[in-house]
Amino acid sequence: MTKKESGIIFDKVAIIGIGLIGSSIAKAIKKTQISNNISGYAKTHKTRQKVRELGYIDCVENDLVSAIKDADLIILCVPVGSNREILQEISSSLKKGSILTDVGSVKAEVIHQISDLIPHGVSFIPGHPIAGTEFSGPESGFAELLEDKWCILTPYGDFDKNSLNKVKSFWERIGMLVDIMEAEQHDLILAITSHIPHLIAYNIVGTATDLEKVTKKQVTQYAAGGFRDFTRIASSDPIMWRDVFLNNKEAVLEMLGRFMEDLTDLQKAIRWKDGKKLEELFTKTRKIRQGIIKEEKERSSK
Amino acid sequence: MTKKESGIIFDKVAIIGIGLIGSSIAKAIKKTQISNNISGYAKTHKTRQKVRELGYIDCVENDLVSAIKDADLIILCVPVGSNREILQEISSSLKKGSILTDVGSVKAEVIHQISDLIPHGVSFIPGHPIAGTEFSGPESGFAELLEDKWCILTPYGDFDKNSLNKVKSFWERIGMLVDIMEAEQHDLILAITSHIPHLIAYNIVGTATDLEKVTKKQVTQYAAGGFRDFTRIASSDPIMWRDVFLNNKEAVLEMLGRFMEDLTDLQKAIRWKDGKKLEELFTKTRKIRQGIIKEEKERSSK
Repeated sequence: MTKKESGIIFDKVAIIGIGLIGSSIAKAIKKTQISNNISGYAKTHKTRQKVRELGYIDCVENDLVSAIKDADLIILCVPVGSNREILQEISSSLKKGSILTDVGSVKAEVIHQISDLIPHGVSFIPGHPIAGTEFSGPESGFAELLEDKWCILTPYGDFDKNSLNKVKSFWERIGMLVDIMEAEQHDLILAITSHIPHLIAYNIVGTATDLEKVTKKQVTQYAAGGFRDFTRIASSDPIMWRDVFLNNKEAVLEMLGRFMEDLTDLQKAIRWKDGKKLEELFTKTRKIRQGIIKEEKERSSK
Repeated sequence: MTKKESGIIFDKVAIIGIGLIGSSIAKAIKKTQISNNISGYAKTHKTRQKVRELGYIDCVENDLVSAIKDADLIILCVPVGSNREILQEISSSLKKGSILTDVGSVKAEVIHQISDLIPHGVSFIPGHPIAGTEFSGPESGFAELLEDKWCILTPYGDFDKNSLNKVKSFWERIGMLVDIMEAEQHDLILAITSHIPHLIAYNIVGTATDLEKVTKKQVTQYAAGGFRDFTRIASSDPIMWRDVFLNNKEAVLEMLGRFMEDLTDLQKAIRWKDGKKLEELFTKTRKIRQGIIKEEKERSSK
């Protein structure tokens, strides 16, 4: 019986950083049995303790080098600002023939930060499973978080095709759909579909709680009219999101500029009571929603 | 047995406009049996037909005057821009002693628009049940939409206290919590907790689908990272929301100005890589979410 037939893709997988995504991946590996051995590393004693209690990682290590020892696939699941520091520590201990990947919401800057630290004989296939909730920490993950969602891989330079295919199979077996594109394209798409939405959610919640004519209590009490949904998004992990904005700066600033231009247009339409313009936009956006619902139905029926 | 004991608050309730809110109110009246007789009016034949099929309104009328005939409570459930036209038509036919209320998301302008059309002997108690979904139309309502939510009443001028109390009881019996405040205060609170959130959701969806470097298909496909939630809000009823922005212009422009100031600050923080500032905001907004969840728990346990 070959490895492929038995369903094992990687003998040992190391998960570096065990938050929402790291714990979801570990649970998905257990569920699909695509690896026999998961090791994990978390920075704090508290997280390691919690992960040991929860039991979805076979071996929780106190140090990075032990965690990646003999691993065939190493997945970086930390805020993107931490990747370089981690690579500096593990680089020389990575097993020959192993594959490194990550789950960061920013790709070009991650490649820029760590590609010089990838040793000869090790492949780095950058990736981004697009899934999440507002919860974070090792108790928040679940295998189904990743199912029927897209994972974008952004191989660069002279990458190893076999490694790419193995990483692709890994995510597909977990239940994800995989797409492959340039890192820069990924970063633009994510800037507008994820980073700017988060930024404006954080911003409106900040604005709303810093007014002199409306109290914080009133904002909290009467949140049902729309604000509540924004607070959910604006309660996502602060460190992860700080790092996203710092590391996808160019694409975020470009998309933010467009968002602000359009908002200024809307401001003007309201000031001049241009009802037609408002109605046209609000009708158009409704159709986009319908497109997303349709796309999701098609995806899950595949 | 007095009326109060039998649970009837109004012998006949007329619902003008049978969309999401109008149909939810009708169903809630049926569920709680606080009126024996609900009449309804909808502008289009198609809606009237649908409502007749669904059966939650006793008598669906083709014209406004028939719908309000003998009604003790008349509830305007139309986009706020339509109220004056309706009042012009029904004003002289309103029953002496009846109470008129509305559900509009804007209060000062509604009062300004129709208060001169309220005949002597009729009370107008403006109101706003803060509840909704992205769906609209007569098939979208459900009684539970209103339960455990806030309803704000904004009586003005020399209002009749007895009428205010009856309207208050009406909403409370339906399961809502009632608060009473000045129309201007309501409009400021809603501008920041509901109108601006909707405006920026509409805006980001518009921006995202009008880019040359990212296709509409990519935006739809990779929506899971945050954008999807915004499309839900941005698929709310276009006419209703057009009217909200046109009729709460001053408060919306004031709050939008603040939102944009804060967003410009964040833009600067990203440009200058001020991670501390981003992290501070993102940590603060997380606490607001916790406050809302706490408030909801307390409310539903009451």
